[in-house]
Amino acid sequence: MVFKLNNHLLSMIASGNGHGEDSPYFEGWKAYDSNPHHPMENPNGIIQMGLAENQLCFDLIQDWLKNNPKASICTHEGVNEFREIAIFQDYHGLPEFRNAVAKFMAKVRGNKVTFDPDRVVMNGGATGAHETVAFCLADPGEAFLVPTPYYPGFDRDLRWRTGVKLIPVVSESSNNFKVTREALENAYEMAKLDNIKVKGLLINNPSNPLGTILDRETLRSIVRFINEKNIHLVCDEIYAATVFSQPEFISIAEIVQEDIECNLNLVHIVYSLSKDMGFPGLRVGIIYSYNDAVVSCARKMSSFGLVSSQTQYMIASMLSDDEFVGKFIRESKTRLAARHGVFTDGLAQVSIKCLKTSNAGLFLWMDLSGLLKEKTFEAEMALWRVIIHEVKLNVSPGCSFHCTEPGWFRVCFANMDDQTMQVALSRIRTFVNKDVDTKKPKRTLRWQGSLKLSSPRIYDDFINSPRSPLPQSPLVLARN
Amino acid sequence: MVFKLNNHLLSMIASGNGHGEDSPYFEGWKAYDSNPHHPMENPNGIIQMGLAENQLCFDLIQDWLKNNPKASICTHEGVNEFREIAIFQDYHGLPEFRNAVAKFMAKVRGNKVTFDPDRVVMNGGATGAHETVAFCLADPGEAFLVPTPYYPGFDRDLRWRTGVKLIPVVSESSNNFKVTREALENAYEMAKLDNIKVKGLLINNPSNPLGTILDRETLRSIVRFINEKNIHLVCDEIYAATVFSQPEFISIAEIVQEDIECNLNLVHIVYSLSKDMGFPGLRVGIIYSYNDAVVSCARKMSSFGLVSSQTQYMIASMLSDDEFVGKFIRESKTRLAARHGVFTDGLAQVSIKCLKTSNAGLFLWMDLSGLLKEKTFEAEMALWRVIIHEVKLNVSPGCSFHCTEPGWFRVCFANMDDQTMQVALSRIRTFVNKDVDTKKPKRTLRWQGSLKLSSPRIYDDFINSPRSPLPQSPLVLARN
Repeated sequence: MVFKLNNHLLSMIASGNGHGEDSPYFEGWKAYDSNPHHPMENPNGIIQMGLAENQLCFDLIQDWLKNNPKASICTHEGVNEFREIAIFQDYHGLPEFRNAVAKFMAKVRGNKVTFDPDRVVMNGGATGAHETVAFCLADPGEAFLVPTPYYPGFDRDLRWRTGVKLIPVVSESSNNFKVTREALENAYEMAKLDNIKVKGLLINNPSNPLGTILDRETLRSIVRFINEKNIHLVCDEIYAATVFSQPEFISIAEIVQEDIECNLNLVHIVYSLSKDMGFPGLRVGIIYSYNDAVVSCARKMSSFGLVSSQTQYMIASMLSDDEFVGKFIRESKTRLAARHGVFTDGLAQVSIKCLKTSNAGLFLWMDLSGLLKEKTFEAEMALWRVIIHEVKLNVSPGCSFHCTEPGWFRVCFANMDDQTMQVALSRIRTFVNKDVDTKKPKRTLRWQGSLKLSSPRIYDDFINSPRSPLPQSPLVLARN
Repeated sequence: MVFKLNNHLLSMIASGNGHGEDSPYFEGWKAYDSNPHHPMENPNGIIQMGLAENQLCFDLIQDWLKNNPKASICTHEGVNEFREIAIFQDYHGLPEFRNAVAKFMAKVRGNKVTFDPDRVVMNGGATGAHETVAFCLADPGEAFLVPTPYYPGFDRDLRWRTGVKLIPVVSESSNNFKVTREALENAYEMAKLDNIKVKGLLINNPSNPLGTILDRETLRSIVRFINEKNIHLVCDEIYAATVFSQPEFISIAEIVQEDIECNLNLVHIVYSLSKDMGFPGLRVGIIYSYNDAVVSCARKMSSFGLVSSQTQYMIASMLSDDEFVGKFIRESKTRLAARHGVFTDGLAQVSIKCLKTSNAGLFLWMDLSGLLKEKTFEAEMALWRVIIHEVKLNVSPGCSFHCTEPGWFRVCFANMDDQTMQVALSRIRTFVNKDVDTKKPKRTLRWQGSLKLSSPRIYDDFINSPRSPLPQSPLVLARN
């Protein structure tokens, strides 16, 4: 006999929609999931360009694994370590793991800074790391400032179970979405007017979705700002190793080691191997805090999301191999730069522009504002629905990143092979209805202004529909 | 330049002591950590008997791994799967993983019940699973009833970050700590008087620390109780495969499939591979809920503590091997039974009794009330400090399990080899100062009543000290 449960028997968190799965960002994943592209089996399926994965260097990783069988407790060579590793559950993590991660973090930052292994706290991916930092720093109702556009998952990671608020700091295309002191002050003052206590500023450097890095002056200005306000600074640097061209990446770790007045207790870095190494499935999230109390508390909280000791052991071996790590970082940047180049060139052929200051990340910030029927987010969503259902590319609309100007889209380019990327580019070219001679990639083309579709009826259906008719599959990935 | 941080800049959770690391349960681990026993290098060190690890069958596991190199993405044979697994981050988990876990859960329960893989939600160990369930079912200030004595980590897992309360349901030695309807009603009524909303009942079957299982009538009575009160039932069954002798284990899954009136939406199982397989380091926690909304919400929350896909893949292969799993479960029970027998016999030689109804778990519930100077928890703590610092055994005092009668101690017996166990037994025998002829194990001995120590000064120091002088090392394990 089965009764129907009254919703009030669940918690407010479980009954509410704070997870944010109904965002178009996640909705696009569901659409992809219901009709995924495959070169042979489903060539007309949706191509996943909404997933910030780094798949370009797995050949290097797999070679390394073949040459290092002792790195695994599941090989003949390494199995004698199985027992000790399988029972290891100390929340400090394996010392070799913390040492290797600290060294890797420095290497990724050009060895211009060092990291203390005793401040490395592991967590279940950057998702878990961000939630843990929020639990450590803020009480329900208190807030973090976050420059826009920002990664949609932050709304889940920092807010959902903590009750913490996020307050947008508006950035604009007119200055390439730079984080200005004025915008920070405005957001801070707005919060004050609303009687919301601001506990910190969250920055994402390199930025997802912009693919840009923060320059030294901006970083210094940010450090001055958080010190003047006496609030925390959480720096998400999970794309640190994806900076593929000049200028070089500058970590907040470098700034706070400069001769700048800074209360180090206010500074915390979130890191991960999901993007820089391309291992989101392994759930290696890191909190690096300069604050002893946060290190201690976050470590206790890490019991809720420890990294599998099997994975810690393998990562410790891999990241301890200096020669391999050096080669991997160099080669990864080279391949990302090449992919970025081909993709931006391909878009330029049909006069699609991307944010020009981008030199990092696994995505482009693409300006399609010229394709909007009007300068509204409704028009952005309408265009997005055409792109996903008609052009069959899952890109992510700017509104899902809290962008304040309609017409921007994030397009991921490192989660597919060259062939799929060419299919994607070709679909975009067809979409803007140009008969492009792909053998002359350098030829400059101008898009003619009117949107032509093979099936305008569908476009209008979407325009007129306030909601997408997508099936509400619950499939959502952990973080991208 | 470094400033001092005001504590008010951290959250209340971070500033408080809700983690419970100052409990004697955790304190004992720290003491062990500062002076761990080693047969050769530190033979006079503390023996760890406060850790509910299952180390008796790793030879079987390691043999299996050697014979199944494709089970790992880090072997020559399996490395071609590395890319697909390393990028896999779907919060549903690998289908093979969920299927294998569902099958394993049934097998561990004698195949008298089945489990639907679509209801298997992964989480970061049972620690993460319990927190997730609490976040799904209760709001801050609401409560779960929990029969005493109970696992100290529940105070952290269910309460710390959720703000949920735990209300003890008193069990007594006079009836072997059975969970009675009367005690459940009393706890429920007490909560009502305190204006605390009870949202559920948490049971742990088999019980840590008791090593007992709940009989069919008790389980039915519990199901009736939660249905009458319309509250949730969370069943922690993480020791299901450790039931080493008759009577057989009865899962709540078996009861709710009987012809009993039960709102299935109220029933949730927490499971893990940390105890039954002995893999706490791999952080495989499971929520199995009969409630669709809880499955859906818990799955979203699992993003904060997903199981490493590398580990999912290996576990999926291992648990899909029926022949191996059958052999492992049988052999594990046989070895636990043997260890339990030798240990209880060894204690009986010096007239130490254990809870006689115990037939499960990785520990004994040892009655040392006869050794107490007086029937108080102060005396229990004094005795505990002697045992840990003088006898050099880290056992866990009953008070840390919220036991309401002083003098009980949990002693883990499956986390050491035979030789270490004999050293532990010999220390206990020396402690009660009997010149036991170990060649006559069947001889019944009676302890004479007075506590004799080689260094009574230290005992009195501890009696007089309200606090242990242990260094406050932050080393605490994730769950035991």
